[in-house]
Amino acid sequence: MECMIDEDVVAASNEAREAALRADYATLGEQLARRNVDIGATLDKVRAFRVAIPSWGVGTGGTRFARFPGPGEPRDIFDKIEDCAVIQQLTQATPSVSLHIPWDKADPQRLKQAASRFGLGFDAMNSNTFSDAEGQKNSYKFGSLSHADAATRRQAVEHNVECIEIGKELGSKALTVWVGDGSNFPGQVNFARAFERYLESAREIYEALPPDWRLFTEHKMYEPAFYSTVIQDWGTSYLAAKELGDRAYCLVDLGHHAPNVNIEMIVSRLIQFGKLGGFHFNDSKYGDDDLDAGAIDPYRLFLIFNELVDAELSGAKDFNPAHMLDQNHNVTDPIESLMLSAAEVQRAYAQALLVDRKALEGFQEDNDALMATQTLKVAFRTDVEPILAMARLADGGAIDPVAAYRASGYRRKVAGERPAVAASGGGIV
Amino acid sequence: MECMIDEDVVAASNEAREAALRADYATLGEQLARRNVDIGATLDKVRAFRVAIPSWGVGTGGTRFARFPGPGEPRDIFDKIEDCAVIQQLTQATPSVSLHIPWDKADPQRLKQAASRFGLGFDAMNSNTFSDAEGQKNSYKFGSLSHADAATRRQAVEHNVECIEIGKELGSKALTVWVGDGSNFPGQVNFARAFERYLESAREIYEALPPDWRLFTEHKMYEPAFYSTVIQDWGTSYLAAKELGDRAYCLVDLGHHAPNVNIEMIVSRLIQFGKLGGFHFNDSKYGDDDLDAGAIDPYRLFLIFNELVDAELSGAKDFNPAHMLDQNHNVTDPIESLMLSAAEVQRAYAQALLVDRKALEGFQEDNDALMATQTLKVAFRTDVEPILAMARLADGGAIDPVAAYRASGYRRKVAGERPAVAASGGGIV
Amino acid sequence: MECMIDEDVVAASNEAREAALRADYATLGEQLARRNVDIGATLDKVRAFRVAIPSWGVGTGGTRFARFPGPGEPRDIFDKIEDCAVIQQLTQATPSVSLHIPWDKADPQRLKQAASRFGLGFDAMNSNTFSDAEGQKNSYKFGSLSHADAATRRQAVEHNVECIEIGKELGSKALTVWVGDGSNFPGQVNFARAFERYLESAREIYEALPPDWRLFTEHKMYEPAFYSTVIQDWGTSYLAAKELGDRAYCLVDLGHHAPNVNIEMIVSRLIQFGKLGGFHFNDSKYGDDDLDAGAIDPYRLFLIFNELVDAELSGAKDFNPAHMLDQNHNVTDPIESLMLSAAEVQRAYAQALLVDRKALEGFQEDNDALMATQTLKVAFRTDVEPILAMARLADGGAIDPVAAYRASGYRRKVAGERPAVAASGGGIV
Amino acid sequence: MECMIDEDVVAASNEAREAALRADYATLGEQLARRNVDIGATLDKVRAFRVAIPSWGVGTGGTRFARFPGPGEPRDIFDKIEDCAVIQQLTQATPSVSLHIPWDKADPQRLKQAASRFGLGFDAMNSNTFSDAEGQKNSYKFGSLSHADAATRRQAVEHNVECIEIGKELGSKALTVWVGDGSNFPGQVNFARAFERYLESAREIYEALPPDWRLFTEHKMYEPAFYSTVIQDWGTSYLAAKELGDRAYCLVDLGHHAPNVNIEMIVSRLIQFGKLGGFHFNDSKYGDDDLDAGAIDPYRLFLIFNELVDAELSGAKDFNPAHMLDQNHNVTDPIESLMLSAAEVQRAYAQALLVDRKALEGFQEDNDALMATQTLKVAFRTDVEPILAMARLADGGAIDPVAAYRASGYRRKVAGERPAVAASGGGIV
Repeated sequence: MECMIDEDVVAASNEAREAALRADYATLGEQLARRNVDIGATLDKVRAFRVAIPSWGVGTGGTRFARFPGPGEPRDIFDKIEDCAVIQQLTQATPSVSLHIPWDKADPQRLKQAASRFGLGFDAMNSNTFSDAEGQKNSYKFGSLSHADAATRRQAVEHNVECIEIGKELGSKALTVWVGDGSNFPGQVNFARAFERYLESAREIYEALPPDWRLFTEHKMYEPAFYSTVIQDWGTSYLAAKELGDRAYCLVDLGHHAPNVNIEMIVSRLIQFGKLGGFHFNDSKYGDDDLDAGAIDPYRLFLIFNELVDAELSGAKDFNPAHMLDQNHNVTDPIESLMLSAAEVQRAYAQALLVDRKALEGFQEDNDALMATQTLKVAFRTDVEPILAMARLADGGAIDPVAAYRASGYRRKVAGERPAVAASGGGIV
Repeated sequence: MECMIDEDVVAASNEAREAALRADYATLGEQLARRNVDIGATLDKVRAFRVAIPSWGVGTGGTRFARFPGPGEPRDIFDKIEDCAVIQQLTQATPSVSLHIPWDKADPQRLKQAASRFGLGFDAMNSNTFSDAEGQKNSYKFGSLSHADAATRRQAVEHNVECIEIGKELGSKALTVWVGDGSNFPGQVNFARAFERYLESAREIYEALPPDWRLFTEHKMYEPAFYSTVIQDWGTSYLAAKELGDRAYCLVDLGHHAPNVNIEMIVSRLIQFGKLGGFHFNDSKYGDDDLDAGAIDPYRLFLIFNELVDAELSGAKDFNPAHMLDQNHNVTDPIESLMLSAAEVQRAYAQALLVDRKALEGFQEDNDALMATQTLKVAFRTDVEPILAMARLADGGAIDPVAAYRASGYRRKVAGERPAVAASGGGIV
Repeated sequence: MECMIDEDVVAASNEAREAALRADYATLGEQLARRNVDIGATLDKVRAFRVAIPSWGVGTGGTRFARFPGPGEPRDIFDKIEDCAVIQQLTQATPSVSLHIPWDKADPQRLKQAASRFGLGFDAMNSNTFSDAEGQKNSYKFGSLSHADAATRRQAVEHNVECIEIGKELGSKALTVWVGDGSNFPGQVNFARAFERYLESAREIYEALPPDWRLFTEHKMYEPAFYSTVIQDWGTSYLAAKELGDRAYCLVDLGHHAPNVNIEMIVSRLIQFGKLGGFHFNDSKYGDDDLDAGAIDPYRLFLIFNELVDAELSGAKDFNPAHMLDQNHNVTDPIESLMLSAAEVQRAYAQALLVDRKALEGFQEDNDALMATQTLKVAFRTDVEPILAMARLADGGAIDPVAAYRASGYRRKVAGERPAVAASGGGIV
Repeated sequence: MECMIDEDVVAASNEAREAALRADYATLGEQLARRNVDIGATLDKVRAFRVAIPSWGVGTGGTRFARFPGPGEPRDIFDKIEDCAVIQQLTQATPSVSLHIPWDKADPQRLKQAASRFGLGFDAMNSNTFSDAEGQKNSYKFGSLSHADAATRRQAVEHNVECIEIGKELGSKALTVWVGDGSNFPGQVNFARAFERYLESAREIYEALPPDWRLFTEHKMYEPAFYSTVIQDWGTSYLAAKELGDRAYCLVDLGHHAPNVNIEMIVSRLIQFGKLGGFHFNDSKYGDDDLDAGAIDPYRLFLIFNELVDAELSGAKDFNPAHMLDQNHNVTDPIESLMLSAAEVQRAYAQALLVDRKALEGFQEDNDALMATQTLKVAFRTDVEPILAMARLADGGAIDPVAAYRASGYRRKVAGERPAVAASGGGIV
């Protein structure tokens, strides 16, 4: 297996940190033992945890006003795969890449080869009918799967089927369908007719799905300039998945909700009704900010994992959520953000594993709200960094991925190979 | 039929306004004729429109900080029925009263008699398991239908069944179940178990439902101090109604949503999936403010009625929404607020009837967003007050209900009969 | 004066509508006379009302995901001026254009000439330090006026000073300073130091301001991906304007606030403390949607104008607000949206003029909340379209600007002259 | 000094926990030493930190729908002082009580005696003009300091002056003025006139302030049923404090903001402009929930303390914020909630002390957003519980206050002495 980062650099970085890590891990082990938690079992679970990297995440994003690229921006999907390989090498938590078509369109065999060099696989395929590709016959300006025009809907369906075809060759097992369909003004679309058309189109895609694949519907409350979206919330996403069939599930992007909404409760409902497909992890302060997971409200991320661990331990049926990051990096090195975000997701998972669930259930039965919530807090405030670092070390990654990455000079190196990209601005204030 | 307000007062008030009304009505008729709208047909539909009055609405509400009662507060359900009779006499739009048990508990025969004196009937029954009644065995402090304790759940189920029993005697045809169940802290309840218990309890209530009754589930995002509610949004309300059966429907209270949520779209979804039960009309600026319908965002109310009229005209199946006001009057005379709110609901209905739906559909098919939204705007900005006033006049009500009411001296009169109520304060800042 | 639209087309369009308009105007005049309002005086005020067009508004906008241009997109500021001339010709309400530098940079004399052909003038100048211009030395990726680096701040200051210089030649009298400075992560910037640097830079710009100019500070809660902005709300905007001096004022963009915020109250506070500079009119459902003014919540727009008319009539000191549209047109013809938006702003103004302020004040003194709010409602629900149309007709514009515009074939014509622009997509989901 | 809890109970509880605590403290000390942090210095700062208990917090709160009291509710201010003494005994972090007049009105000498028995002092006085006291001449239904009627304003001013008089005898040094003044409907009040009247009234109160006192203005976006409040946000609170004078400051209640607002930034602005008076600590998920501090978003609490510690270390002028809890306990034992909340506030303070500020400043200067935000995260995820527990132990409190409290049987004991209070319900749905 090839490595993008010199293994000696990683080894040197680890060597400087290993003694302190082992001491902290031992201490934490003792503290957890006092709480009747076996740190080794927790470590094993963390090592088995995986989160996929979105190919588009390794590039620098922007707002509608401007985009300020960084040095060494990936030129194509092959550069992106190399960046993903760096993330996986150092974190050992991200062995698969989620592609977006047509952005990442390339010969599937070449894609497979490029990924397998680094031991990477392919996660869910993502179709794109929210922007017009070059040379596309019908425009998605007024929608895609729900467009008033049948030919445009057909084109969008066929694009999704093509994504499945590509994914089949790559070994993917899921298709994520996020559409930008909606309206900007009251009255622009008839809500019911638009949703009927969406369902009709989605059914055609669903029929093209191989038996071992899943289809993920993704809701989103709004885009800037929108008045409505066709899959505006989890309720509509659930209705869509229910209408489509057993292999259709709902995807939860943490930034796609109304202000103040209790997301962990939505997660619970989808689990209870057998329709949780997975996550697009990220964080947000105001809207669909696509900030690094856990950057703004780490306790919310923990509460979501509290639901996931509860479902895992209680054997909820049809429970097999996909974990994907979906972030937009405007001011950081995307590789650094994605490495830390993978760790933040692992952190929430590890903390949720530490919840004393037997005690919690007792407090819940007794209506002891204070001790119930404290039971969660005790788990949350445990600093599980030694477990995460030990998991990385045990699997050949870096104790401190950002430190190792910076030491490697990777960004500087690719900046020498990949031409600089100009900043771009919009025209809206 | 008895009248609470002297008919001469109403006649005098109308006489002073009738000529101007007839002139305005004629002018509006001509203007609408130019738009190919028959004002007479619109008038007939408005006259057939009904909205129920909540018995609790005729008293003065408060916040958790304080309540400042007005003069002549109703002492019991019989005073409340008299106040409702005033509203119906002057508006001719509110022929039924929605009772809340145990607040309005009384001998059903006496209740029927009291109402029939004024030609009033009874709308949906409302159970109350969000506060403890005097002498109640088990407390609802930690929930009711979803309480961890089986005996408390049983008590709550039995209370609902009792509400049905009372309603059967009164001629009601629906039970609205809003529960205050939820939690104040993360971890306090297990979301899935609580919802399972809710469903189990609700099923027992549903089984007690007469075949010609409907059960309304009502969602609400939060109460002050809450972290979660058991029926937090329309998605969960839909799941509950779906689980219960064909006679269970979702009730939409306009103030029970997250900030910025597109409520008219929720209405459309519930219609499309055959689960819209009805409305609790009110308005809000920030949260569950229970302000007078249309007081803050009249265009939103219109957009909701745009969906309702669209469903009515397109013959949506299972479409028979109940219309109820649900408001909290802190600084106005409740009778005045309810009369104007009934008119606001009629106004939105009348405006929605004026939408040129054929043109609208054409603009939608053509993606002419600007003309589509203008088609709604043209209907909305039509001043339909002459139609509403003519509907009232034609049915024996008041052209200007507030003017007639003030002229009657009703409030002053009842203030002489009903003892003053002291202001009360809470203890929370 | 040149006309972009054939005057015969306008005349023909008006001819078909004039009789009905005159009838409606007469009827409305009688109805208003009954309310002691002189329709002629109202018409005069509406005719004197002006709102500026933003040069960037005549192009098609986009989201960070995609931009779908329409036919005949303006290629440069000279095309934009022609589009603005169309709007002014048909609405007679928009005699000035607000420029954005460097987007609209051109020889000032040529700009003046181009505008004066159509009788257009120049409103506030807008600087741009939220995106990087080609060849710019220092990047604004991490801020501009508040950047940690002094050279970058200097560059941003100089750009603003250049905007003033250009504006002086054009006859502009104000500079609007909106910066995209902020942060994406907690800790990224020190709030206090960043604001100090902002103030220091802004002071330098302020010093370059001619004595008869005003400087407008503009707040905005967030951009997608932001955790903080340097001028996040009106409180900070006020502090900035206060620190700068008497010629610094606060600009209110209707979409730049937190959910649920009472914007009309902010307007009142800024008036009361002598710091209201003006408006960027638009509307929004969720965030900074930049939708057409009045498209989502027309009553809110009316309530804002209710404050403005109140201030105008009561002679508030330093009260001279600039009116500008600031919209992003994604799915409509920008010229059509801007014409209707100008009319919506006029409509709110006209309705606010109809408020019976003497009665209102009486109800306020008497705590008659119901009649006070009804006094506003009566004004709001008056259909003032005849006044707006008569104002346009009287000044040589179109009774129905969209109808006249469509009849003229302008868009088709320029689409033949201006090359088609490809749709573009982002890379973020 | 008297103790409400048997000291032997506390000692026994501590004895069972002390060995583990000392081990954890030592380990943490070593870990912090590696980060160049002296745990002893941090401990000293935590020991010196104080937060006041609101007298009203020791009773059970409610919503406008219902109140469900717990056992042993305090009957009067003397019972409340005893409950506060329990909190101080076990936490050693809460040596003062904040009174609310007239709820806590009693002979000042008796109050001082009651408090001094337990070594308790008095924090800020709170006036109440948001509800009507028994026998009060003029009602606050339509406002108090901003009421249209001069006599009502005078009464409200006099009540505030009386609060100062009582406070002077008790040794208080501040008056917190929160008013419920506002409006429920557009047009009900004239914003500018209402604020002028508020300022006029507040100036009279300010003039009665002793030279060593501070006056705190407190903003709040809304109450249920409100359309506007007179001090709606920090901008207006700042204007009020500025108008009043040097001893007027702004109080920040964490639950009184619009959704999504960046509160830590408001804190920074108020510090920068010398107007931060202090805090009402609590937490919220949706609105003014008054939940236990840190219960919903502990990272937000930390970010606020990050600003406070930054100001403390950088010697910000006029920086002396008052710390008060302001919570509403509906489903927990108020004593337990207040003890844990005091600890949560200390926790955020302790974590903020651990931020490597020199490194942070460097990352900020270098625009290294990732490392800047990680610097905060590293501090936040440090489990500082050993420092908090050691602080309590060192000062004679309990290592685990809730465990010691439950072991003491205090609540059971007072439930035997204080009569049970009936649940109460409202009348609003």
